[in-house]
Amino acid sequence: MLVEKIKSSADVHCLSQADLKTLADEVRGTIIRVTSKNGGHVAPNLGVVELTIALHKVFDFPTDKIVFDVSHQCYTHKLLTGRAERFETLRTSGGLSGFCRRDENPADAFGAGHAGTAISAAMGLAAARDRLGGNEHVIAVVGDASLTNGVSFEALNILAETTKRLIVVLNDNEWSIDRNVGATAELLNRLIMTPAYNKITRAARRFVEKFIPFGKQIVQAASQFKKGNKSMATHGTSSIFEHFKLRYLGPVDGHNIPELCRYLEFAKTTEQPILLHVRTQKGRGLAPAIANPEKFHGCAAYDPETGTVSRSSPLKSWQQVFGESLVKLAAEDSRIVGITAAMAAGTSLNLLKKAFPQQYFDVGIAEENAVVMAAGMAARGLKPCVAIYSTFMQRAIDMVMHDVCLQNLPVVFCLDRAGLSPQDGATHHGLYDLSMMRCLPNLILMQPKDDDELADMLKTAFDSQKPCAIRYSRGPARGVPVKAVPAILPIGKAQIVREPQDAPAQIFIWALGAEALELAHKVAAHFAGTTVVNARFCKPLDTDLLFEQARRAKVLVTVENHAIAGGFGSAVLEALAQAKISVPVEQVGWPDRFVPHASTAEDLEKDFGLTEEAVVRRLQHLIGQ
Amino acid sequence: MLVEKIKSSADVHCLSQADLKTLADEVRGTIIRVTSKNGGHVAPNLGVVELTIALHKVFDFPTDKIVFDVSHQCYTHKLLTGRAERFETLRTSGGLSGFCRRDENPADAFGAGHAGTAISAAMGLAAARDRLGGNEHVIAVVGDASLTNGVSFEALNILAETTKRLIVVLNDNEWSIDRNVGATAELLNRLIMTPAYNKITRAARRFVEKFIPFGKQIVQAASQFKKGNKSMATHGTSSIFEHFKLRYLGPVDGHNIPELCRYLEFAKTTEQPILLHVRTQKGRGLAPAIANPEKFHGCAAYDPETGTVSRSSPLKSWQQVFGESLVKLAAEDSRIVGITAAMAAGTSLNLLKKAFPQQYFDVGIAEENAVVMAAGMAARGLKPCVAIYSTFMQRAIDMVMHDVCLQNLPVVFCLDRAGLSPQDGATHHGLYDLSMMRCLPNLILMQPKDDDELADMLKTAFDSQKPCAIRYSRGPARGVPVKAVPAILPIGKAQIVREPQDAPAQIFIWALGAEALELAHKVAAHFAGTTVVNARFCKPLDTDLLFEQARRAKVLVTVENHAIAGGFGSAVLEALAQAKISVPVEQVGWPDRFVPHASTAEDLEKDFGLTEEAVVRRLQHLIGQ
Repeated sequence: MLVEKIKSSADVHCLSQADLKTLADEVRGTIIRVTSKNGGHVAPNLGVVELTIALHKVFDFPTDKIVFDVSHQCYTHKLLTGRAERFETLRTSGGLSGFCRRDENPADAFGAGHAGTAISAAMGLAAARDRLGGNEHVIAVVGDASLTNGVSFEALNILAETTKRLIVVLNDNEWSIDRNVGATAELLNRLIMTPAYNKITRAARRFVEKFIPFGKQIVQAASQFKKGNKSMATHGTSSIFEHFKLRYLGPVDGHNIPELCRYLEFAKTTEQPILLHVRTQKGRGLAPAIANPEKFHGCAAYDPETGTVSRSSPLKSWQQVFGESLVKLAAEDSRIVGITAAMAAGTSLNLLKKAFPQQYFDVGIAEENAVVMAAGMAARGLKPCVAIYSTFMQRAIDMVMHDVCLQNLPVVFCLDRAGLSPQDGATHHGLYDLSMMRCLPNLILMQPKDDDELADMLKTAFDSQKPCAIRYSRGPARGVPVKAVPAILPIGKAQIVREPQDAPAQIFIWALGAEALELAHKVAAHFAGTTVVNARFCKPLDTDLLFEQARRAKVLVTVENHAIAGGFGSAVLEALAQAKISVPVEQVGWPDRFVPHASTAEDLEKDFGLTEEAVVRRLQHLIGQ
Repeated sequence: MLVEKIKSSADVHCLSQADLKTLADEVRGTIIRVTSKNGGHVAPNLGVVELTIALHKVFDFPTDKIVFDVSHQCYTHKLLTGRAERFETLRTSGGLSGFCRRDENPADAFGAGHAGTAISAAMGLAAARDRLGGNEHVIAVVGDASLTNGVSFEALNILAETTKRLIVVLNDNEWSIDRNVGATAELLNRLIMTPAYNKITRAARRFVEKFIPFGKQIVQAASQFKKGNKSMATHGTSSIFEHFKLRYLGPVDGHNIPELCRYLEFAKTTEQPILLHVRTQKGRGLAPAIANPEKFHGCAAYDPETGTVSRSSPLKSWQQVFGESLVKLAAEDSRIVGITAAMAAGTSLNLLKKAFPQQYFDVGIAEENAVVMAAGMAARGLKPCVAIYSTFMQRAIDMVMHDVCLQNLPVVFCLDRAGLSPQDGATHHGLYDLSMMRCLPNLILMQPKDDDELADMLKTAFDSQKPCAIRYSRGPARGVPVKAVPAILPIGKAQIVREPQDAPAQIFIWALGAEALELAHKVAAHFAGTTVVNARFCKPLDTDLLFEQARRAKVLVTVENHAIAGGFGSAVLEALAQAKISVPVEQVGWPDRFVPHASTAEDLEKDFGLTEEAVVRRLQHLIGQ
């Protein structure tokens, strides 16, 4: 196969257009074959096969620098940069990451997993190049959805005054355009994309530029055809970019390699930041993905013929339990509203959208705005619930502090994907939310032990009239039936879930959340006299129970699916220090290293000493067994 | 005085235009009189006197809702909402806050102290009003600088699809426009601002709208005259807002109350989100502030005649020591660059700007972009130093994690204003940075004991080739001379700064930073056998020294100018727990409550039990003296 012979851009440069077409077919086949086994970001990657090949044909990586926004569209780039042989290992333990990683390959100029950073990072690379006297090209590949994120705008705002040479490739995969208008736009753009254009005299340039506004108006008119609910940011894109003093070029068919190459060759020659608007089709070449691009945005293993995605568990996911519980509460109280930052399906807020569309808000990939808007809503009497993945919540920590907690407004945060996202890895694990939020006064922090307790916590949060955050994991919940009417839990009260039958109490395990409790129960079985407590609240802690137990404990163990530094166990240590209770405490949680991706959570737990066996050994050592 | 009789908007409604003019003069006089004693955000407040009076003339607060962005321009609003009597107490202990606070007055619909949140919060208020069937008006007053912040754009992006009724007042205080062009624009705008316009038939509307694009083009052309270095975001403002489907109106003279009232009356009637572009003069009515708006943006007490601002200390500030040290290092290494988010003077990065303009970057109020861009620069071989106030750094925590620490890139963060900003209060204290950042792998966290050590830490940070953050306080440093050549400190090594001469060691105080050390020394003088350690590093901790001392300590004390939850003391507890060293630990730091504003740090330390006396009492109790 051709793809196996490509080790770098240099190997792409010498291919004919016919070869490039063959290469595209091979790449697409490889992506489908591997992701159908390993899962992954199928649809975004299938959309940029030709675009990435064209970039490698025209540019020279790793000499030139490319930054992929979110980088969930980098599979073709990986296949063309010496990683084809290892591509079978994608998203598996010890294998290739599903995202760009600087430490994986020099062609990965900048890593990412969160949206909106590419233009900013590329601007940094370009400014450094300018300052250090380099000559390489810098390219940012940005999806249209990432433009709804504030960071993209912050970068665009100073781009033109920061560097003269940077190419932004706008990968617009929702562009629906009338064929004729598109053709006209293309025609007009052809006028400005001949490299000679950049070298003509000022007088001639003025003449040519007379045509550009017209070209732009056509493009703008075309953009009116964009789908109904489509974000404003890309409505009339061309003009917006001109305001930011970027030269706008496009739209160009993102599956036509020769055309892409011509546009990119032109972009290479401009001495002004340029935006190339590329239309691509999400899921291109895989019928089920084209039919259902949201489902195939990121998914588990699937059957490429039928599009059936494997389900790892017959149980409901935490997300689904949350979504169903919210719908039930929203039915009873019309002041309850749900807010998502472009993750309707991922968070299960799509259930609310379906049931009560008036109580549902999608703000785009804009976590900061989601939180401030929620605070505004709460200040006017609504009961907003903001559902954001733990790792993306990091984007809005200031808003949780400044807009919600400081004003003591009743906003409910549902932190999805707390703990591990094994196949995605370091950018997606939710291991820092407690540390970042536990320092904030007024906030209540909880994590449920099972499905039913999640429903109770959601009810409790709305009832509390305080800022609340509930964290829960990715994947299947515990399969515990949710009772018809949720209960209101006493704030700050823990629950003893296992008491020693066999021996006097000596070990007390405080665990936060279902996964931590599961480990706690397993460990408890190894030791006589072990009590297990479902902490329920990281903040406020149940210090009454904690102190009572700590005073008679031989060892106290804290377990959390979170970083140790500043997390739940740390809250326990602070409380004990304040009460001057002296007891050996064993903190079980993630150590101070970034946690990579892996095939399964178990693999990572093994590598980081968080298995039943490892924890049992630590405790045996501690109590001298 | 008229101003003393105004208790709410209702009292403004009945005033004649002549009375309003008198009121404006009184308000301006009051602001100058009080801020010249108490300090405050002088220039921004003097710029919006007429605008705020016009808003109160046309709208009805607190029934209508107004959100001031950053809210450092809310003094007139306070004076018109029953707070004139207490205005003398502005920014003093127990007195009025310098910012809007929901708990201070019902007319403060939403609080703020960080930039860019107003449109988003107002959108939340408006969406809630729409859902709950309310009828009040919602107004966001936003400075032009806040538009460089991503949150503003995230909000604009979904504004028009979220609500039909919201008024954004753009307070543009740097607008420089040709008089004739401005007059034409005003003329054209008059056409569309008669309330009747909104009620005319569709056919007539179409006729009128034929004129609007032309009006907009004039305005756009006018905007080309804006000052050289001015941000792109406000370049061609009108068109940008149209892209976001806001109706654009203006520019209007922000010191002409009758004209402002007419425009606002029109804005009241529109059934589409509207942006009213108001030109104001920063510092209006105070000659020294007009001459030097940056100095008078926020300042201490001053002489209104001469413009001389009081200096509370003859010592250099921490900021100045930082700025001078950075200039010295940048002179030796041209790869060193400084990045500020619109705080050149506040951070002293203006020293670098002056000395080495090519090594200086101001990204606007865009902390997220500052950090990602720095990561990009570091990835390409520069040595960026990002200087941001501790509290504003909260905006970019995700970027510190995702872009810098995860990629282990050598970016140096200088966290200014760590600890208290007494007169500004809760939105400005820097009490959470350690908690939010200590959980991040790869990051080195330091705080210096004096001027010279700050210079050493800066050198150490650049030398480390790791992500580093150095935190230091607001205000005067220690007056310790900075040696000619800074030293490289051993990473993660603490320093014993006081050893007991009188008795065997029993108390060990670990203090992070100059203020904590000062308190530690004072406390130490009360007890025999006390050792004081300058921790220097919050991360990595000097566990060798800590464990050695903790094993022979009767009491270990941690002192930090930071929240207790998850902070430096918490890091000490975690290390001791891991080593299974049992010793009573007394954590001295800020408890789990938001800390308000006050005249002095001492007042707050007294209220929160952080004085020498209070800490001594706690220790006496603990060691049974």
